[in-house]
Amino acid sequence: MFDEKGILFVLSGPSGVGKGTVRQRLFEKETHLKYSVSATTRKKRPGETEGVDYFYKTKDAFKKMIEQDELLEYAEYVNNYYGTPKEYVEEQIEKGKDVFLEIEVQGAMQVKRNFPEGVFIFLFPPSLEELKNRIVRRGTESNDLVINRLKEAKKEIDMMSEYDYVVVNDDVDKAVEKVKAIIVSEHCKRDRIENQYKKILEDDTNVRTIN
Amino acid sequence: MFDEKGILFVLSGPSGVGKGTVRQRLFEKETHLKYSVSATTRKKRPGETEGVDYFYKTKDAFKKMIEQDELLEYAEYVNNYYGTPKEYVEEQIEKGKDVFLEIEVQGAMQVKRNFPEGVFIFLFPPSLEELKNRIVRRGTESNDLVINRLKEAKKEIDMMSEYDYVVVNDDVDKAVEKVKAIIVSEHCKRDRIENQYKKILEDDTNVRTIN
Repeated sequence: MFDEKGILFVLSGPSGVGKGTVRQRLFEKETHLKYSVSATTRKKRPGETEGVDYFYKTKDAFKKMIEQDELLEYAEYVNNYYGTPKEYVEEQIEKGKDVFLEIEVQGAMQVKRNFPEGVFIFLFPPSLEELKNRIVRRGTESNDLVINRLKEAKKEIDMMSEYDYVVVNDDVDKAVEKVKAIIVSEHCKRDRIENQYKKILEDDTNVRTIN
Repeated sequence: MFDEKGILFVLSGPSGVGKGTVRQRLFEKETHLKYSVSATTRKKRPGETEGVDYFYKTKDAFKKMIEQDELLEYAEYVNNYYGTPKEYVEEQIEKGKDVFLEIEVQGAMQVKRNFPEGVFIFLFPPSLEELKNRIVRRGTESNDLVINRLKEAKKEIDMMSEYDYVVVNDDVDKAVEKVKAIIVSEHCKRDRIENQYKKILEDDTNVRTIN
């Protein structure tokens, strides 16, 4: 009905909160969303696929992307880089497609500066105890790294106030339903569509018949 | 999980846009919502029931309610009064229940002044032509009243900018799904729940173990 632009949705939250799981489940249900695959220098984990979960880069290759301003955001996190290629996101939004990013908190805040019209969703742990268990269970980090990650997580939770929405991840399906509702309702926001609606009324020849 | 207050949702829009139909369909699906029945001095229409669709009042009885400050909002509209009893709404919200109001535009704006924390949804006609057809088809008004209602409708559409959301009613089921999504997503708004979440973290004894 409307020549509407897409919306950039950013799902973020502390490391270990379950962002990846929520994103995967969401994409099983919401086929209209475009997922922007991030670039990273961190090592591939078992079960992950190049070009699907991440584009895995060497540090040198990643730094070149930064220099050439090819990233919408990037962050160094626990000695690795993560970033979002810029061009794809901008193209999809212009075409009216919603783009969904799942990224670390530092990256989300850079996106917010570059795309203040984006919608920022903070995935919240049911408790810090649960968050700790999830990070420990992952089993890919040394003890020192686990403690580092938990400290980072606490700092990141303090950044919640920069977000538009908070979704608690006590149940993956419930969290996904909430993210889906946020996507639908954001398209109904008055300030996004007011001008388009008024234009339709002005174009409507019937306006003259009741003036 | 949280000791959360309810939210007041206000569905409004021009006369004839289909507010009542959307509200009825919504309530078939969303049993957790509390509907606040309005008081009115307009005549009961075929199929309507006292205490379900409205409390039907004489003008004298309605004026007494105004004087005794028993209404959250009231409006005179095409020579009739419409109003919302205050006590019920406040009680439900305090108990953590969502309250849903379906009211005329003038009433919605009064509620906004009294309850700025409410969520205001504007139901938008697919076109003015369609709106006109709906008002004429209703068949309960004289020609002059139909013209009056259409003029009012145009004025009311200009008030869209006072609302938080705009839902176009080109398809009742789609409109209901959008209103449902707005209800879910509003409960995820960061500014509504930030303080509650931070309190949980402070209460969490595990915070100490990672400081």
